[in-house]
Amino acid sequence: MDILKQRILEDGIVLDGNILKVDSFLNHQIDTHLLDDIGEEFYRLFKDEHITKILTVESSGISVACAVGRIFKVPVLFAKKGNVKTLDEATYCEQSYSFTKKESYYMNVSKKYLGPKDTILIIDDFLANGIAIDALLGIIDQSQAKLVGVGIVIEKEFQKGGKKLRQAGVRLESLARIISMENGNIIFS
Amino acid sequence: MDILKQRILEDGIVLDGNILKVDSFLNHQIDTHLLDDIGEEFYRLFKDEHITKILTVESSGISVACAVGRIFKVPVLFAKKGNVKTLDEATYCEQSYSFTKKESYYMNVSKKYLGPKDTILIIDDFLANGIAIDALLGIIDQSQAKLVGVGIVIEKEFQKGGKKLRQAGVRLESLARIISMENGNIIFS
Repeated sequence: MDILKQRILEDGIVLDGNILKVDSFLNHQIDTHLLDDIGEEFYRLFKDEHITKILTVESSGISVACAVGRIFKVPVLFAKKGNVKTLDEATYCEQSYSFTKKESYYMNVSKKYLGPKDTILIIDDFLANGIAIDALLGIIDQSQAKLVGVGIVIEKEFQKGGKKLRQAGVRLESLARIISMENGNIIFS
Repeated sequence: MDILKQRILEDGIVLDGNILKVDSFLNHQIDTHLLDDIGEEFYRLFKDEHITKILTVESSGISVACAVGRIFKVPVLFAKKGNVKTLDEATYCEQSYSFTKKESYYMNVSKKYLGPKDTILIIDDFLANGIAIDALLGIIDQSQAKLVGVGIVIEKEFQKGGKKLRQAGVRLESLARIISMENGNIIFS
C-alpha cells in the first residue's frame, strides 16, 4: 500500500531497540482519512471470506479495526487487557507480554461475543514478535470460531512474528512490510 | 438520539454501584453501524465550529472519536494513559482517577500534536463524575488550544460530571442522558 509506505517514510521515527514511532498518524494522533484507505485495502484483500466479526486488542488496534469493520458492515470486538488472570467461566483469557512495557498481561474476551458460528479477521496496527497475535489466536481457538486471516498495518519483517504465522499456515496480509530499519533507514520488502 | 437510547434499553445491563455495561455495542463489542450514526449526530451538532482536531482518551473513547473525526475530516488525538507522571518537556501530562479500577493514572499528550492553533472537540463514550474530562480540559488549557465543546455518548446525569461542566460554561452535548438507573430501570431525561 504505497500511500501508507510513503507516510511511514515521511513521518515514521526510528528509535533505539528497533522501535518505529508512527505517533503522528496511527498510534497517538490518527489520520482518519488514511484509516479509511486502510479499511478499503483490507476489504479488498478479504472481501470474499464471509467475515462476521473483526477481532483486535486495545488500544491502538481499535481505530484500525473499526475502519475495517465499518466497510465489512460487521461488529468489532476488542480484547481487554488486565493485570490479573480472569478465571470466570464467561470469559476467554490468554496471557500475553508487552516488549514495550516489559510486563506480562492478560487478554480477555467475553464468551457472549465470540463462538463457533463466527468467521474472524484479526486486525492490528503492528506485528513484531507476534506475542499479541498469539494470544488472540489462542482466544479464537478456545472459542472454536473460524479464523480467516490476520491483517496488519505495519509488519516488522525482521522480527519473528510474521514468519511464525506464515509457517503455521495463517493467511497474513501486512500493508507495509519493513525488512530493515538499520541506521534509521526504513527499507520495505 | 432515539436509536441509541433504544439500544441502551435493549442491551444495556445495570450493575451494582451505578455501573451501566454496554459491552455488546460500545465498550467491548462495537456496533460499527451505530458508530457511524453517532458520528453523524455529533457532526450535526458541532459542524459550524471549525473544529481542527478531536481529542479523546484511550481506550473506549477511540472508536467514537474516530467515527466523529472521519466525518469532520480531521485527525483524532487520544491521550495515552500511564502509571507514572511524565516529566519531559515534550508532553502535556494531567493526573486522573479511575472509579472502575480504583486507581490514579496519568494522561499524556504530545505537544507536537496540540497547540494554540487547534480548535478542539472532546469526545468520550461515558460521562459520570467527569474526572477523565477534567484531565482532558487541563491538557487543553496547557496547550492553549480553543475548546469548542464536549461530546458524550452516554451521560449519567445523576452523577456530577455533567452539572459541573455546564456550570463552568462548557458546551456539553450528550446523545443519551440517563437520570436514573434505580432497580435496574434506565430512565432518560
